[in-house]
Amino acid sequence: MTSSKKYVYAFEEGDGKNKMLLGGKGANLCEMTQIGLNVPPGFTASTDACNAYLEKNQLPPGLMDEIRTHMAALEKKTGKGFGDAKNPLLISVRSGAAMSMPGMMDTILNLGLNEVSLKGLITQTGNERFAYDAYRRFIQLFGKIALNISDEHFDERMVAIKRKYGAPQDVDLNTEHLKELAGEFLAIVQRQTGQAFPQDPFVQLEIAVGAVFRSWMGKRAVDYRKQFRITKAQANGTAVSICTMVFGNMGNDSGTGVGFTRNPGTGENVIYGEYLVNAQGEDVVAGIRTPKAIAEMEQEMPEIHRQLIQLRSRLESHYHEVQDFEFTIEKGILYCLQTRNGKMNARAMVRTSVEMFHQGLITKERALLRTEPAVLEQLLVPQLAPNFHAKSLAQGLSASPGAASGKIVFDADTAETRGRAGEKIILVREETKPEDIHGFFQAQGILTSRGGKTSHAAVVARGMGKPCVSGCEQIVINDQLRSAKVGDTVLREGDVITIDGGTGHVYAGEIPTVEAEFSEEMNTLLGWADEVAALKVMANADSPVDALRAREFGAMGIGLCRTERMFNATDRLPIVQEMILAETLEERQAALDRLLPIQRADFKGIFKAMKGLPVTVRLLDPPMHEFLPTAAQLELEIAHLHQLRDTIKALEDLPETLKMLNPKLYQQYADGLTPLMGALGTFKKSHMEDEVIAKKEKILKKVRALAEVNPMLGHRGVRLGITYPEIYSMQIRAILEAAALCGKQGIEIYPEIMVPQVATVEELKRIHSYVQRIRQEVRATHGIDVQFKFGSMLEVVRACMRSGRMAEIAEFFSFGTNDLSQATFSFSREDAENKFLPFYNETGILEDNPFEVLDIKGVGQLMKMAVQNGRVTNPDLKVGICGEHGGHPGSIRFCHHIKLNYVSCSGPRVPIARLAAAQAKLLEDQYREPV
Amino acid sequence: MTSSKKYVYAFEEGDGKNKMLLGGKGANLCEMTQIGLNVPPGFTASTDACNAYLEKNQLPPGLMDEIRTHMAALEKKTGKGFGDAKNPLLISVRSGAAMSMPGMMDTILNLGLNEVSLKGLITQTGNERFAYDAYRRFIQLFGKIALNISDEHFDERMVAIKRKYGAPQDVDLNTEHLKELAGEFLAIVQRQTGQAFPQDPFVQLEIAVGAVFRSWMGKRAVDYRKQFRITKAQANGTAVSICTMVFGNMGNDSGTGVGFTRNPGTGENVIYGEYLVNAQGEDVVAGIRTPKAIAEMEQEMPEIHRQLIQLRSRLESHYHEVQDFEFTIEKGILYCLQTRNGKMNARAMVRTSVEMFHQGLITKERALLRTEPAVLEQLLVPQLAPNFHAKSLAQGLSASPGAASGKIVFDADTAETRGRAGEKIILVREETKPEDIHGFFQAQGILTSRGGKTSHAAVVARGMGKPCVSGCEQIVINDQLRSAKVGDTVLREGDVITIDGGTGHVYAGEIPTVEAEFSEEMNTLLGWADEVAALKVMANADSPVDALRAREFGAMGIGLCRTERMFNATDRLPIVQEMILAETLEERQAALDRLLPIQRADFKGIFKAMKGLPVTVRLLDPPMHEFLPTAAQLELEIAHLHQLRDTIKALEDLPETLKMLNPKLYQQYADGLTPLMGALGTFKKSHMEDEVIAKKEKILKKVRALAEVNPMLGHRGVRLGITYPEIYSMQIRAILEAAALCGKQGIEIYPEIMVPQVATVEELKRIHSYVQRIRQEVRATHGIDVQFKFGSMLEVVRACMRSGRMAEIAEFFSFGTNDLSQATFSFSREDAENKFLPFYNETGILEDNPFEVLDIKGVGQLMKMAVQNGRVTNPDLKVGICGEHGGHPGSIRFCHHIKLNYVSCSGPRVPIARLAAAQAKLLEDQYREPV
Repeated sequence: MTSSKKYVYAFEEGDGKNKMLLGGKGANLCEMTQIGLNVPPGFTASTDACNAYLEKNQLPPGLMDEIRTHMAALEKKTGKGFGDAKNPLLISVRSGAAMSMPGMMDTILNLGLNEVSLKGLITQTGNERFAYDAYRRFIQLFGKIALNISDEHFDERMVAIKRKYGAPQDVDLNTEHLKELAGEFLAIVQRQTGQAFPQDPFVQLEIAVGAVFRSWMGKRAVDYRKQFRITKAQANGTAVSICTMVFGNMGNDSGTGVGFTRNPGTGENVIYGEYLVNAQGEDVVAGIRTPKAIAEMEQEMPEIHRQLIQLRSRLESHYHEVQDFEFTIEKGILYCLQTRNGKMNARAMVRTSVEMFHQGLITKERALLRTEPAVLEQLLVPQLAPNFHAKSLAQGLSASPGAASGKIVFDADTAETRGRAGEKIILVREETKPEDIHGFFQAQGILTSRGGKTSHAAVVARGMGKPCVSGCEQIVINDQLRSAKVGDTVLREGDVITIDGGTGHVYAGEIPTVEAEFSEEMNTLLGWADEVAALKVMANADSPVDALRAREFGAMGIGLCRTERMFNATDRLPIVQEMILAETLEERQAALDRLLPIQRADFKGIFKAMKGLPVTVRLLDPPMHEFLPTAAQLELEIAHLHQLRDTIKALEDLPETLKMLNPKLYQQYADGLTPLMGALGTFKKSHMEDEVIAKKEKILKKVRALAEVNPMLGHRGVRLGITYPEIYSMQIRAILEAAALCGKQGIEIYPEIMVPQVATVEELKRIHSYVQRIRQEVRATHGIDVQFKFGSMLEVVRACMRSGRMAEIAEFFSFGTNDLSQATFSFSREDAENKFLPFYNETGILEDNPFEVLDIKGVGQLMKMAVQNGRVTNPDLKVGICGEHGGHPGSIRFCHHIKLNYVSCSGPRVPIARLAAAQAKLLEDQYREPV
Repeated sequence: MTSSKKYVYAFEEGDGKNKMLLGGKGANLCEMTQIGLNVPPGFTASTDACNAYLEKNQLPPGLMDEIRTHMAALEKKTGKGFGDAKNPLLISVRSGAAMSMPGMMDTILNLGLNEVSLKGLITQTGNERFAYDAYRRFIQLFGKIALNISDEHFDERMVAIKRKYGAPQDVDLNTEHLKELAGEFLAIVQRQTGQAFPQDPFVQLEIAVGAVFRSWMGKRAVDYRKQFRITKAQANGTAVSICTMVFGNMGNDSGTGVGFTRNPGTGENVIYGEYLVNAQGEDVVAGIRTPKAIAEMEQEMPEIHRQLIQLRSRLESHYHEVQDFEFTIEKGILYCLQTRNGKMNARAMVRTSVEMFHQGLITKERALLRTEPAVLEQLLVPQLAPNFHAKSLAQGLSASPGAASGKIVFDADTAETRGRAGEKIILVREETKPEDIHGFFQAQGILTSRGGKTSHAAVVARGMGKPCVSGCEQIVINDQLRSAKVGDTVLREGDVITIDGGTGHVYAGEIPTVEAEFSEEMNTLLGWADEVAALKVMANADSPVDALRAREFGAMGIGLCRTERMFNATDRLPIVQEMILAETLEERQAALDRLLPIQRADFKGIFKAMKGLPVTVRLLDPPMHEFLPTAAQLELEIAHLHQLRDTIKALEDLPETLKMLNPKLYQQYADGLTPLMGALGTFKKSHMEDEVIAKKEKILKKVRALAEVNPMLGHRGVRLGITYPEIYSMQIRAILEAAALCGKQGIEIYPEIMVPQVATVEELKRIHSYVQRIRQEVRATHGIDVQFKFGSMLEVVRACMRSGRMAEIAEFFSFGTNDLSQATFSFSREDAENKFLPFYNETGILEDNPFEVLDIKGVGQLMKMAVQNGRVTNPDLKVGICGEHGGHPGSIRFCHHIKLNYVSCSGPRVPIARLAAAQAKLLEDQYREPV
């Protein structure tokens, strides 16, 4: 029988874990009560009651009886009377489902007020104005929510009263005005419902409970659940919590405030928060009075302060997490109204994790799991200086992290010109398009007034690692005037602004930024992570400086050392170009002979920097034409040279021309012309020898011969190594000789040689034969048999398909997921991010940018297969990833799942990867692959 | 005991199938003998004997005894005596291993000749000169092979004798001269070996047998086996066949000849061949006398002719294959010396297959299997006119099939210039390099003097479908002189030559070519193929004309209709460009509205042409910029326009300039200048309105905006369809409306809509939603619910990985193996074929060009997986292939193996594919995937 069913639970008895039954709010109140916090007493009508109500559109039998029983208990506990004329009990009627749906359902405050209890409230507070204000608010809220009267009726009266008494703001209305208003509100209820405002508190309560239940099926709530895909299994209706009202405005022994159990900005282990004496929560929001720091309470209300300190301990020891709580002091009694896990910045998360572990509040495991690895990025990109004082002009979306300052520019062409000229530029546009790409290259950061986190600007900026704030709608851009307005502020081209891509804030002027910071606690936490993780975390680094920096970030080796970056250094590039332009093997070898000692020194430096740890050197990868100027550049230079030659020719002809056209004029100038002609000859000799043109034309010819339709899929990587064996041979020799020299100095080194772009087993075999030959030669010369590993990139789809055979030769694999993702999607990254990928992300065709977040369904499956087949051949095969995905937490989780040995990522992402690797291990049992 | 082992087998007893034991030669002689052909009697010493010899370096015990026994039997059979002075038995001692190794091992003829039997030979032949010639040849051959005397000793004497008697050629020596020579040869043997030339025929024989066995380990033979990777399991030593010599030069009742059981050029079912009366085989080779056609023999030697006809039947009914045989007539007796399967051209293969089946000689299965499908290509590309009479100048390698004529050009730049000017060009170079690529585009064909079938020239020409002869070493090119020499013939730039890429022949002058031909027998044979095959064969065709042609080739539908080819037609391109340049959706839609009726008409035409058969239409695939001129082109045009404008400006300023510099001159010309200025104004108005420049600059801007780094992986295919839904919508509407209109006319049609470049399930879903919407709209407008299939290309790797999910929406898949191979290898086809693929093929890193021959180990495995996963979702899923591999026999075999439903290829390759599909089915049990 329904009447036998229990619907109502006192806070003392409800199960604090049973959110499905009591809602999040109700469960929280129960839990707080039961751990001994002084929560304003109350009780909760369950979601079962809600569902019973919704089914029959009436409160289930017995519910009101239970509620009356609990109300009687409340009266007893508080010593107050519901509707009482002296010491009235007022209550709040609050909604609350198992999943948080902020603002989507209704809550009524101060229920129990009527003409009688109003007087009691005045007595209690000694504040008539407050009482009438509460009364008129209650009538409006109840009218709207419980009686379904439109707000506009009430608002109209409010406006009229203010006009009548010349009161600009609500707060300017005095007691009399509010009294009059309350009267008018009661009249509105009478008019709109045809009945008087219910004076019986229990009638009020019965209507209110039904109204809150109904709000579960209100349009807002239904839309919200649809939008966020909240299923019935996650939240099955709202509970109703009925809670005693407490007032912080009952005199100087009362007050209200919010607190954090620790400082959410720094993580420091001190109570943190603000309070106001003799005030209600809404006074804080209204901003009329400035709250004080909780620290000051120690002087002002020492006993309450002591209780708060106690409250803080109790919260943390129960919740094992930093808490963000609300409190009210009513006549010297501290009530805790609400608590939840505190939101903190990355620095605070790290510090509290370590300190809470040391206090025994949380386990190491919990310490590692409670921080989202990606938030560490905040600590690893340039940030606004921590103590800057500036008011944000506007806030958009945090589209790409990091902070940057620069002069505003409203179009890409200008950005390019001014950027090239060395100015720091922020490109500001309504939205960006593929045509704007050249502007991105020269800008410090990008700000758009339209577009989301997956808009063109956002995607491209993230791809380039530049800060971006997108969708900052407060900024109104006028392209014609080359200016923008934010409220009343006008920003003109050339004005300096600062953007913070981590928060979305935009500031006028330049704000100093600081580089990444690496705290003691971070080291401790990541040390724990390393103990737990199965995956090793390596860094991508191309120089001794990068290598040392990566080591500081905690890299356990170099997973990718790109030798071409060394080729591009200004002192080497001419030699590299000489090698490329060589027309014979001898010429090429001569250039390579000059590169050998340079590369050997590079490798020696890196090996030393990474002593004791593995260093994986990738042989030359990019196509040759990347080391030469572009055809367009050369054509322009040649055209200029030709023009210069023509001009000189015209000058040379000048005397003759003049003589012919105007002999008289010629006579006049003849003397002056001779030295001019002489100077011309000298200039020509020193500058214009046809050789220069010839040389440029030779380079141009080579550039054209090397030009490729799809350079991404062209003559590069191992294909170069095979067609020009002398290039790879030089690099291999440089590696092995550097290793031998380090060996002689007693430096412990673990070199690994990695071949890029491998597609066929035969390619790998050929390079392996070079390596074997050179190893013998180095042994003969240096007397040391260098120990090293030989392996292959898996960045070509075919290599993944052939991994079983590849593993016969390779001792390790490294997934190059940048290239592999391009090949798997047939998306050229540059083209995709610039042309269609933002659209794909915005319209949900792809959830993520596959060049940032590993595509597990496609690329991931290829990887999984490749690992499995490789390990069939060689169970000890070492497998890693060195694409950008190696630094992305979700991707790392998948890498752990398919049993990779390591991930390698850019130095600054190493800490993120270390934490993510630990979490992957801790959560491995819960991992499910997407389908 | 070794002595008990049998080493020697008479031709009457040896197992004709046991080539491992008797060698190919020995087994052939045994088989011919045993089927009743009149083979000169003899016997074979087995490979066992060879191995025993090689082991101990001496003839195994008992071998010579066996040989003596068989020689006695021979004497009995022939009535001749070994070493006899009247009727001597002469024999040949022939090598022969299980695998044919032409010319690699030794054979000795006329063994048994000595001072005594020489007289007998004179008696037998009545030809003293012949006998001495045979004797001196025997001494030299035996001396060289059996006694290891260098040829130069003999050659030196030959030269001296010719000089002595003023004989320019060997044939000018008379009996006396040859007698003298034989004497000198005997003296050489004495000098070089310290012993007399062995006169005892059995001593000759014993030495000869050992020498032939030894030749198995000779350098030439060992190198050959290494080169062609002939293993011990394939050939384990040489056998020695000892065969009675028969002579065709024993009078007018003797003769020699070669025959085919059918005409190898046409396949006609008549005996075919040539003979010479009273002659030996070498006389035919020497070319002194012109042989007669076998048909003439009917008059000249009717009985022998009758026997030959009989021989022909016997050969065919035994071998079930056209035979190429050698015969000799000795004194009215016909001997068959050798027979083997006849080599025929494609036409003959097809005709004989059909006719031999009808004669009951072979089964249908055999008829289908005996022709290599690829040879049908000969019948499907332009060929030299069949009756042309021209002597080949030189022969190189058949690098890319087809015939072409054109003017010789020695460098790519000239080829480009002259080709663009409309001349027909053959590019002739020592070898080609990537820099020559622009010359290929303008040439009719390519001829190189160096490089193999996988050289740059060969690979690129095949890729372009142009004829190519490579490695034609007889041609000596002199770049400086811009001429080439072939023997004494000089070819100059501009001279016309003809090349036949199917045979490798090069001819002077222009030889007419003929288009593909499709015989009745071809239709019959391919009809049988269709009955057998599991795979359907579709064609790639883009117009009604192509479609009809494909139907003639036997296509069972259109597997790929590329709509972009329609876009490129000259009447549509301007509209397409308008669409691309549109700046608003409205402008674009307006252009699309004009394209709609055109595309609809295209589809209607194709549907009609293919009535009753499926037509798969692929939606737009290439990136937009392919429909616009290139940036370089536009830049040049704009530069020219600016130049023109500057020139006009200078002309306009002319009067003022002149007036200033030379007022007198100005006065002289002033009258004339006025009309010039007037004309200039008119010209300017009609030609130089700035609009033209502005318009071109607008296009240039768009071209630059659309430019892509890797267009192969860029904004194309379904990515266009999603970012510009209106384009695909227009195409889908055109297809469905065309289908509806055909339906109204009662034309039976099976349209299929195919989406290119699909990488994600969501892409396919979106396009499917367009299709569903437009289907409804067409139903509403036309009252017909068009029935069609909806499917996806699988040409992106990720689509293969996701095929299980794709199959939830797609009713069919079509592998686009061109793009899929590019993505799987990360090879851009254009770049790879031009840069490194030829090198890869030549050095064996890749056996084949993966864009011609499907890469089964990589791409194939992806396909296999995709088919399996797709069929798990939908067991009835139709799957095909429409890349170029769809026309390659080996690839078709794999497609059958992985259970595709169809292959689609270019029209002219349809016949090849049909035959290959049948063979794939017939040989399916033998199929093994490479690993």
